[in-house]
Amino acid sequence: MGSLESERTTVGWAARDPSGILSPYTYTLRNTGPDDVYIKVHYCGICHSDLHQIKNDLGMSNYPMVPGHEVVGEVLEVGSNVTKFSVGEIVGTGLLVGCCKNCTACQSDIEQYCNKKIWNYNDVYTDGKPTQGGFAETVVVEQKFVVKIPEGLAPEQAAPLLCAGVTVYSPLSHFGLKEGGLRGGILGLGGVGHMGVKVAKALGHHVTVISSSDKKKKEALEDLGADAYLVSSDTTSMQEAADSLDYIIDTVPVGHPLEPCLSLLKIDGKLILMGVINTPLQFVSPMLMLGRKIITGSFIGSVKEIEEMLEFWKEKGLSSMIEIVTMDYINKAIERLEKNDVRYRFVVDVKGSKLDQ
Amino acid sequence: MGSLESERTTVGWAARDPSGILSPYTYTLRNTGPDDVYIKVHYCGICHSDLHQIKNDLGMSNYPMVPGHEVVGEVLEVGSNVTKFSVGEIVGTGLLVGCCKNCTACQSDIEQYCNKKIWNYNDVYTDGKPTQGGFAETVVVEQKFVVKIPEGLAPEQAAPLLCAGVTVYSPLSHFGLKEGGLRGGILGLGGVGHMGVKVAKALGHHVTVISSSDKKKKEALEDLGADAYLVSSDTTSMQEAADSLDYIIDTVPVGHPLEPCLSLLKIDGKLILMGVINTPLQFVSPMLMLGRKIITGSFIGSVKEIEEMLEFWKEKGLSSMIEIVTMDYINKAIERLEKNDVRYRFVVDVKGSKLDQ
Repeated sequence: MGSLESERTTVGWAARDPSGILSPYTYTLRNTGPDDVYIKVHYCGICHSDLHQIKNDLGMSNYPMVPGHEVVGEVLEVGSNVTKFSVGEIVGTGLLVGCCKNCTACQSDIEQYCNKKIWNYNDVYTDGKPTQGGFAETVVVEQKFVVKIPEGLAPEQAAPLLCAGVTVYSPLSHFGLKEGGLRGGILGLGGVGHMGVKVAKALGHHVTVISSSDKKKKEALEDLGADAYLVSSDTTSMQEAADSLDYIIDTVPVGHPLEPCLSLLKIDGKLILMGVINTPLQFVSPMLMLGRKIITGSFIGSVKEIEEMLEFWKEKGLSSMIEIVTMDYINKAIERLEKNDVRYRFVVDVKGSKLDQ
Repeated sequence: MGSLESERTTVGWAARDPSGILSPYTYTLRNTGPDDVYIKVHYCGICHSDLHQIKNDLGMSNYPMVPGHEVVGEVLEVGSNVTKFSVGEIVGTGLLVGCCKNCTACQSDIEQYCNKKIWNYNDVYTDGKPTQGGFAETVVVEQKFVVKIPEGLAPEQAAPLLCAGVTVYSPLSHFGLKEGGLRGGILGLGGVGHMGVKVAKALGHHVTVISSSDKKKKEALEDLGADAYLVSSDTTSMQEAADSLDYIIDTVPVGHPLEPCLSLLKIDGKLILMGVINTPLQFVSPMLMLGRKIITGSFIGSVKEIEEMLEFWKEKGLSSMIEIVTMDYINKAIERLEKNDVRYRFVVDVKGSKLDQ
């Protein structure tokens, strides 16, 4: 097929270089294939990892790059094989838009661990073209990577669930940590951490927020409903809380000592890392051995888990704390995110923004 | 009670200072209490951790110290509450001789994780006296910490199962790794590692021995029956084996890089540390996150698991590779153990040794 017949244009906001400044960018999208869903973007959350990507912090960025992977929108068109979605429905899509479908991970519905997964932006699609993200007027996504947003769940609320939300939900589900009465810790109160408090509280857990300072104490306890707040440098409180937690969700995206966390865990307690940290983390082996403690990590969640998570969120009547902005504010929002100056997730109102100027 | 009435003497071989040289030492043992079993030692294995203790490597040693915690012997006397054991029976006892009985660990039959556990030597018993180990004519042990050696299992064979054996059996059991067909790795082929190969093979696993050199390749494959052998510096073979193992039992007792191990693990694979290493071990978080891999550690096993392990060992008709020595050889044996010059466990024939000279 010639490019005129198989493609159409859209407009998004792209970073052009490692300065990470976004500006309008017109590019082509493939036409809706038999298994594709063509979506008009309504809302898209801003995740901390978008920041790493646009600034080439991991050394793997290609430009122009349209970031954004917490995408909620309206179905404009579906391919001939698509029966699950219809035009006009509100749907979501996250970080992944492709996987091999044959490996153990794909066969086990944990396609997020497929070695051939395709990221929704800054990657190359099966047609050899760069993938582009959700800060755009429209996206085309294979149906396997699209989920319905349950009725009654506000689309702007749903957006951060597609990455931040499922990132905390997935390991709690996988590691058998969904039963009520558990005692959980949340290390770091950013976008993912605040979602961690919400999810853990909704599961009926006793939730302790652990932080390097007491700056967020009031908001953790009063606004988010955490049960306790620990400052990691307060040795007395840390010792009193030793051996008390079933798990800690560690959202800190930079190097930090693990031993204070390990000492807070009960026997068989789990330290679950969610921050991509390329400097080495350290521990001494007796800290694990003498309590059969676990250090592990988890990466987003599967499409199945996203669906479960959306239902859970709706059923429990939860809401995340978001700040809605328009696209002309996005560079400022990214600047503020870099300084942790957001409570707790920016969501861009894409539909309400002028994208081409 | 006066000491004459409540105590009796025994003779063991003790270290007197951090030189770690053992020599005959006469000391008192409590009389058999209502819950106690008085045991004449027949065999006692030498474990690598004995070496750390006698040389004060962990800075916590008290002298004189009679080491030895893989103890098999004959019941000489039982207390009035003891119904499980009778005089003349062959029994075993391991690293622990006491625990609080009230904490979660004790209540869950994983008393090895009790914070108030009492070690069988280099510790203080409930009567305020130092505990002494199995390189001795006799020991007195509370019945809770005594196990029957199943008939048909040679006592010298049973000895190393009480620590080295259960140390590998316990995590395989706890972490759901007993089903056939799994692919396991054993890092380090010493006393515990060789037991790891034996147990994993008996479970029907495909077993890869991982080592820093090819020195032990022939014995691993031919004598122990491992299925594969990987030299960790051989990048090509390591890359070919990437993502292939369900678990690795890491027995290396000194600092070493974890990333080569982590890269060998499948999704959800487990790296189980067994070496007490007080220098920090390192990893980068994406190595865990992008495969939901686990780093954990495990410490010996419970009395229940020792019993299970002994039955398993007998049922499968296994035998460990041991070198039986008499007590007058023990200092030489320790010297050889320090140089890894043993295939694979020394067991002291205590009954056949002259202890008082």
